[in-house]
Formats: sequence, C-alpha cells, structure tokens
Amino acid sequence: MTGDPFYKDLNPISFLDRSADVYPDKPALSYGDITYTYQDFYNRVNKLAGALQKEGIKKGDRVGFLVPNIPAMFEGHYGPLKIGAVLVAINTRLSAREVSYILNHSGAKVLVFDSEYAELINQIKNELPEITRFVQVVDTFPKSSLVKGPEYEEFLNSAGPGEHRVPLESESDPISINYTSGTTGMPKGVQYHSRGAYLSALGEVVESGMNYASKYLWTLPMFHCNGWCFTWATTAVGATNICLRRVDPLEVYRLIEEESVTHMCCAPTVLTSMYSIPDADQQDLSGVTIMTAGAPPAPQVIRSMENMGAHILHTYGLTETYGPTTICAIQPDWKEKSSEEVANLKARQGVAYIVADTGMRVVDTEMNDVERNGSQMGEVVMNGNIVMSGYFDDEDATNKAFEGGWFHSGDLAVWHPDGYIELQDRAKDIIISGGENISSQQVEKVIMEHDGVLEVSVVGVPDERWGEVPKAFVMSKEGVTVSEEEIITFTRDRIAHFKAPKYVEFGELPKTATGKIQKYVLRDKEWEGKEKRIQGSSLT
Amino acid sequence: MTGDPFYKDLNPISFLDRSADVYPDKPALSYGDITYTYQDFYNRVNKLAGALQKEGIKKGDRVGFLVPNIPAMFEGHYGPLKIGAVLVAINTRLSAREVSYILNHSGAKVLVFDSEYAELINQIKNELPEITRFVQVVDTFPKSSLVKGPEYEEFLNSAGPGEHRVPLESESDPISINYTSGTTGMPKGVQYHSRGAYLSALGEVVESGMNYASKYLWTLPMFHCNGWCFTWATTAVGATNICLRRVDPLEVYRLIEEESVTHMCCAPTVLTSMYSIPDADQQDLSGVTIMTAGAPPAPQVIRSMENMGAHILHTYGLTETYGPTTICAIQPDWKEKSSEEVANLKARQGVAYIVADTGMRVVDTEMNDVERNGSQMGEVVMNGNIVMSGYFDDEDATNKAFEGGWFHSGDLAVWHPDGYIELQDRAKDIIISGGENISSQQVEKVIMEHDGVLEVSVVGVPDERWGEVPKAFVMSKEGVTVSEEEIITFTRDRIAHFKAPKYVEFGELPKTATGKIQKYVLRDKEWEGKEKRIQGSSLT
Repeated sequence: MTGDPFYKDLNPISFLDRSADVYPDKPALSYGDITYTYQDFYNRVNKLAGALQKEGIKKGDRVGFLVPNIPAMFEGHYGPLKIGAVLVAINTRLSAREVSYILNHSGAKVLVFDSEYAELINQIKNELPEITRFVQVVDTFPKSSLVKGPEYEEFLNSAGPGEHRVPLESESDPISINYTSGTTGMPKGVQYHSRGAYLSALGEVVESGMNYASKYLWTLPMFHCNGWCFTWATTAVGATNICLRRVDPLEVYRLIEEESVTHMCCAPTVLTSMYSIPDADQQDLSGVTIMTAGAPPAPQVIRSMENMGAHILHTYGLTETYGPTTICAIQPDWKEKSSEEVANLKARQGVAYIVADTGMRVVDTEMNDVERNGSQMGEVVMNGNIVMSGYFDDEDATNKAFEGGWFHSGDLAVWHPDGYIELQDRAKDIIISGGENISSQQVEKVIMEHDGVLEVSVVGVPDERWGEVPKAFVMSKEGVTVSEEEIITFTRDRIAHFKAPKYVEFGELPKTATGKIQKYVLRDKEWEGKEKRIQGSSLT
Repeated sequence: MTGDPFYKDLNPISFLDRSADVYPDKPALSYGDITYTYQDFYNRVNKLAGALQKEGIKKGDRVGFLVPNIPAMFEGHYGPLKIGAVLVAINTRLSAREVSYILNHSGAKVLVFDSEYAELINQIKNELPEITRFVQVVDTFPKSSLVKGPEYEEFLNSAGPGEHRVPLESESDPISINYTSGTTGMPKGVQYHSRGAYLSALGEVVESGMNYASKYLWTLPMFHCNGWCFTWATTAVGATNICLRRVDPLEVYRLIEEESVTHMCCAPTVLTSMYSIPDADQQDLSGVTIMTAGAPPAPQVIRSMENMGAHILHTYGLTETYGPTTICAIQPDWKEKSSEEVANLKARQGVAYIVADTGMRVVDTEMNDVERNGSQMGEVVMNGNIVMSGYFDDEDATNKAFEGGWFHSGDLAVWHPDGYIELQDRAKDIIISGGENISSQQVEKVIMEHDGVLEVSVVGVPDERWGEVPKAFVMSKEGVTVSEEEIITFTRDRIAHFKAPKYVEFGELPKTATGKIQKYVLRDKEWEGKEKRIQGSSLT
C-alpha cells in the first residue's frame, strides 16, 4: 500500500506536524519560566533534526538521551524521529557502567546528556568509541567542563536552514529503543516500531480521555517506555506538557493548582508520597485524571487519591508493550458499589486496551487459557500492535520472549470471571522497586564480585514505600566476616543505587538436592502473611 | 509483518470482540423495548455471520442492506465483516431503479431489507439475478408476502453452531462499499478498507470524546458512510447505541432526555428542525455533543443549538473520506470571544482530523497550495489512511479522483491564515440537499426523457430548510407546453423524490459560443446576494 494516496505510514511525527499547524500559538511545553508554543516546539525539533543530520546521523542511527523530564527530553522524542533515527532514552538513575553498556550496545552515535550527569559521563566517555558528539543540556546544574562538546542550545543552532525530514521506509521501522532490566543481568533494548508507537499514543488518548484542553504533568519519567507513549499522545491532541525535573509532592501540588493540570501518570509510590504529606486532605484533585502503573496500587492508595477528588485509572504493562496495555476499565454498575468495593475492583490490572483489543491472555505452561475463576494462576501473555518488535541485537532473547507466538510478560496473574486479570506473582526473576525493574541476577553477579562472598541469592521483599526492595541472602567465605553495610556499599558503588540490597542476611542458602538455590524458599519466608507475592509489575 | 506477534491487522471487528469481553452485560443497542447487551450483540452478529456463511457468502462477497437505523442495520456492520464479506448499506431514500443498479453493480448475493421497502424490492426482484436470498426485517411494518425469503430473525437462527469467523487477508481488504452520487449520473461504489475504517472509528472517538459511558443517538443514517464510521466507533469504547427508525425532533428530544444521550451526529437540517419546534427554548441539551456535517451549518444554527447547551462539533468530509475528515477544532482563546464570533469561527470546516494529520490541502489547478489568505479559492484534496481505496469496479473514475496522488473532493474552499478551510463552492456538478448528494447530471438525464423537453440544466438553489434543492431550467420543444408540475412528477416517478427538482423554469438556456450550457450563469442568478455558492458539502 505504500505510495498509495489512501495509505500513510503510522508515524507519531505526524502528530507534531498537525499540532504545529492547528495550534501554532498554543503552549506545547511549559517548564519554569519557559513556554514553547507548538510552533516553537516544531522549530526546535526541526533544528535538533538538522543538527543531528549535520553530525552525520542517518536513518536508523541511534541517538542517546540522558536527560530528566525537561523540554530537551521531550524534544528528543521528535528530533531523531523526524529524520528516521532511533531514540535511546536512558534511565537517569542508572550507574555509569550501565549507561556505558546501553550506549555501546545500542551503538549510539550522539549522546545528549544533562549537566547533572556530567560526572557520570566523564567516567565512561573513553569507553564509548562510537559516540562522535556529546551534547550537554545546561539547565539547573552549571555547565561542566569535564565532557567536551556543545551545549544543547548551541547544538540546535548548528542546524542548517530549512526543513529537515527523512521518511521511514516502513511503519515497522524502529523509532526508539528502551532498555529494560531483564532476568539475565544486563539491560535489553526493547524496540518500538512506528506503527506501535502511533497506536499506543492514540490508545493513551482514548483511555485517558485527553483532548486539546488537557494539561499533562510529567510526573512519569519520559525514559520509561517513552513516558508510556504520552510523549506522543499529548502532541496528538495538542495538549500542554508541564515539565518537571524532579518529582516532589509539594511541587506536584503546586503545579496541579497553578497550571490547572488535568492529567498525569505515575507509579503508585508517587501517589503514596502525595497523600502522605501533612495536610494532604486540604488538597483538591478534582478534575485530575491520574493513570497509575508500574506496580499494583493497593486499594487504599486508590481510595486515598479518589477521596481528594482525583480520577484514578489503573493500568498495567511492560516496557515490551509500549507501557500500559491493560486498563482496569470502569463498569457502569460500579456506581452502585461502596468506595471500598470499587477501590478493590480498581486495584486489579483489568482488561486489554482498546488498541490492544484481544491481545492479552493468561495462560498455563501449555499456552492454554487458564480458567476465568479468579484462582488459577497463569502467565500474562500479549500480542498485537502494541507489543515490541523484539530486543535490539538479541535474537535469542527475542525468540524466547515470543515463544508460542505471544510475548511472555513473566508476570503471573489470575483471571477473574469478569475478564479482569489480577497480578499475583512474577515468573521471571525481576524485582520491581518504585516502578523500576531490577534484575536479581544482575545484583547477584555484582555481589559475587565481593571477595568475602561465597554464594548469594537476591529476592524482592515487601516494602511499604517502594512496593518491594532487593534483599540479599549471603553465604560468606569461611573465616571471612562481611557486614551488611559493606555489601550494600559495595553494590551501590557498582550499579544504580536503587538496585542495591536494602537488607543483607547471612547464612546457609536453601538448596535442592542437585544444589540449586531454592529462591522460592527465601521469598516464601519474606512474604509470609502477604496475600500476593508481588508488589510491583514490570512497567519500567 | 503479517504473522508477527507484534502485528495485527487493523480491523473494526476487534472492537466488538473486546467490548463483548469487557462489557458483556452493558447495553450495546437500545431500540424501543429492545435492549441488546454487548454479549447479545456479539451472539446475534455471530449468528448473522453463520447464516451468511450457510448461504454461501465467502470472503470478499457483497451483502446488501436496505434497512433504517434499527438494530439489524447496526448488526449489518459486523456480521459480514466477521467473515470477511463486504457490507453494501443502501440509502433507504433511493428509487427502485437506483437500488437495483447498486445491487447489480456491487454484485450483492444476499439482500437484507426492511419490510417498509418490500414494495420497492418487489418491483426489482426479477432484475437481480445474483441475489440468492432476500431476508426481510420485520419491525414497524407488517411482513410482506411480495418478496419470498426468511424473516431476519429466522435467518439468524439458521446459522450453524459455534463461532463463525474468517480473517481478512490484509488490512487493505475492503469491508464496505458505500454508493454515492457522483457527477456522472449513476452512483459510484466507494470502497472502505479495514485499516481506514478502524482508524476513522478511532478518529471519531478521539474527536468526539466518547468513552464507555457515552450514549449515542442514531440521528445520522447508518447508510451514510457507515454512519461516519460511528457504527464502529461506539463499539470500540463500549458505548450504548440508541437506535431510531425515523428522525423526528420531538422523538429526538424525548430520547435525549429519557436515555441520557451524550452524543449524536446529523446534518444541519436536523438541527434546524430541532430548534424550530415550539418551546425549543425549554429543551436542555447540556451534556450533549453534536457532530454536524453534510452541509455547512450557518453560524446561527450553531448558536441556536449552543444556546440550548449543546456542544457543537462541526466537521466536513465526503463518502470518499469515510465521512468527516476535517473538524473545526476549538482554540483555547475562543473562550474570550463573543458567542457570535465563535459561531462564525465554528461555521468553517476547519482542519484535518488527528488521524488524517496533514492529509488535507486546498490547491490550485496545478496542485500547488493556495495562499492561506481567506480569499484565494482552490479545491480541497485529501490523502492518507482515511481516504477510500477507490471506486468499486470503476478504474477510470478512481484514477480521475486520485489525479496527482490526492483525492479530489470537488469542493472549492478558501484557506484561512489560521489553517482552517471554509467551503465556498463546488467544482463538481453535485447538489447537496439535506445532506444527500444529488447528481445534477442524473436529474438532467431523467428530465430529458420527457417527450416535451428539448434541453435541460439542473442546478442547486438555496433553500432555507435543505440547504439547497435542485431547480431545473427547461427549454421545451417547439409547440409543446409542459408544466412545472408535470416535470416534477415525471422525475419523482423515476428517481428518489429528494432528487426531483423543486422548481422548474422554462425558457432559453444561456450558452457559450460553442453551444455549451453556461450552468454558472444560472447559478449566479439564483445565488445572487448569498455570500457563498454552496449550502451543502458532499458528506453523504
């Protein structure tokens, strides 16, 4: 159909083209004193595209961004896309080693980073042979001289004149790679294709009910599944994006009031922090739709927020599904139920998105649907247009993930008689803490590097604030004394701080007859008395 | 990508699959005493699919429906689709001759018709050799014995057991053909492909802001562009469809109140009839979003409806664009304007739909964009995913329509500096009356058959109620006296009544030196003092 007048590749860049045309004077981005209209935004993206072209970036080339939720990161979702290049938005909480791995694995040729991370980039800049240009965004933090290269604004101005645009060859071309912690240690690069990103963005518009009058507050990191594709969704409808560098509940409340925020997304931990401030009950969240995912919110979290007037949408998904792919769709007859009952119903992960239609099942190990009885557990599997096209440069992992023709989430759930799923446990060895994925194997590998450690097993344990946190069970070498503090510091020095164990317990590890560590025994003990063996879903 | 787990054909049948799963007990269709839940609706569609299969209907076969806006017509949008067959929904106001032409041209093998039209079908049943089965829907009108065949409910029950489903080969497969009056007389079959219908439906959801709580009133005929694709849009979100057989303002008001209607679509003439009833100012339309198209609504129409509380969305499109493809998008700063100013701004046809993105231009005869100055006129052309894939079995017309790689609407418009288009005139020889297309050539051909007529030219003239109506200028044969009444009756006997001239004027016709009738001279005279040479757009 390509080339036909009745066919056009589905590509989120068209959202920008249209909104710049329809809403040129409307604020697209607002950040502190900065306001960029849609025309400004279009022009800046065009400059970014031109500057990247001048730097030699071609269709399919990767461009790294290590930038918090400020306008440059938003622009990063359009500049590379406009010339057919691929965005690699990197989690700003990762360690130098992990950032280095991602940049090398993706083969990024340009890195745009915020000066807050100059020190980190300085540590690794010599291990990144493919990067030809480091571009520094100077915002809250002073310009660093540690890393050579132009400032972001200077870089934009280096673009040649005119319009810079390179069409995709097909709507199945990748437009972004999002690295996520898998089970096997180092992050895997989840590829989003243009069609999927476009449909996912439209899906968010439909599910969240956004329109031209919406004001979207960026409490969700844009480096998580490209902000669950809201980076493209808000532009589709011509909404205003309110950026914020750091999520602080008081700042969130201030922006909600001052900017008349209508929509935001976040992990439940952000909600917990919001209703935990003193005088939270003085806050008025009526008119604010909050989509939450990244961990199953407790019913009490939903109730607390709705008591403040917020409209809570509970969704679930993974990086591999462009962010949310299920929603706890509200049923008309819930109106007649008590707020407690509704919160319980809403605490389930729900049903497939409209754009995911029937592309979600809960299956047994033979890929048969489990019974919809609310008790038989199975793995959540997905297919369809909002499932990744594979892991970048990792065919084995891709094939494994798509075994049987469906994407395997690794999340275990029950299927209720009304068709709603509810997460119960995780098949894969991932810990989810505050909405961030942690590979227990990666943490184990690091701890094993410690001289005094003989064996280690890391599991997620319940945590009031973060849902779960890693706990290490360590068998130290004979005659060696290692402290909890030592293990924690050792790990924090090597990987992202949130991945380091919060607790360390020493002693013999439970094993099978064949000598395999029985992780479930460790977990069982820690989760005793908890109804579900999960406090986090894999949406990071 | 077909076959990949991250690809699924865009197909509106998935909306039904999902909504039946998510909202099984929610009313999908409501009509008088009848309520079908989404599960009922799914089951009935499945039966229809099975019955059609039993009748020998295969992928790609056409199925005709001549049924008003009652549940059977809605089901007609899913039964054939479910087995990959193609719906031909026929305008119930057409004449027997036209219906016969459409059925034969499309090669329909089954015809489902309402008993109201039994007499009409009886007239043509012997000219329809390809139809193997006539199915009669018995609703308000008694069962007719004129046409042999099962009743609709009986037909549904003839389906075999189990699930009936045939997938499309590709999302570019046609799923419906909508016949529209073109310039050249007999109707042309506009083909909708699955991808376009899916995206158009999502587009309607996004532009109209529908969700699961919406109640959609069927004031727009489903045979017009498949109800502007709302037949699929309402199902996508799990909304409730309120059917009504005939549009009567009092009935519309009653249903709006009793059923808590949130959305409806219609031509401006319906709006005129709504605010023209006695005590219209007693009506409360707050909470009702009304999308209007099919003719440019006068600012006063928009104001009158908004004074009653309705939220008016003004859209524009053609059968060839799946219904609406532009919307007069509201700008935030319109809030500060007077209601009169806003109504004037809203009376323009606007900008491309989000799903049409930049697929709309106003061009001169060399296909260059006209200036956006609100005065240079050009033709509106479209491309992209919500443009038809061509006219069924009419390559010449298709090629002509797509000259230069864009679909030519035949509508002339100016482009305002803010990017909004405003229709001015029509390049093609079509009259649009009450939202219905009339080919002036078709009317001329019929009148020419009258013995007393030497020459005729038919143009659209302004009409308070219908926007425009056909007027015939007749030069009668020498020595013959023909009356206005005679011409009108002669025409009404042969084609749809709304196509017959409302006025006939006798006398010499203005001609060029080469003898060509100067239609524009006739039109100029009739439209003197009117700002625009158009009262109807081609959305039928």
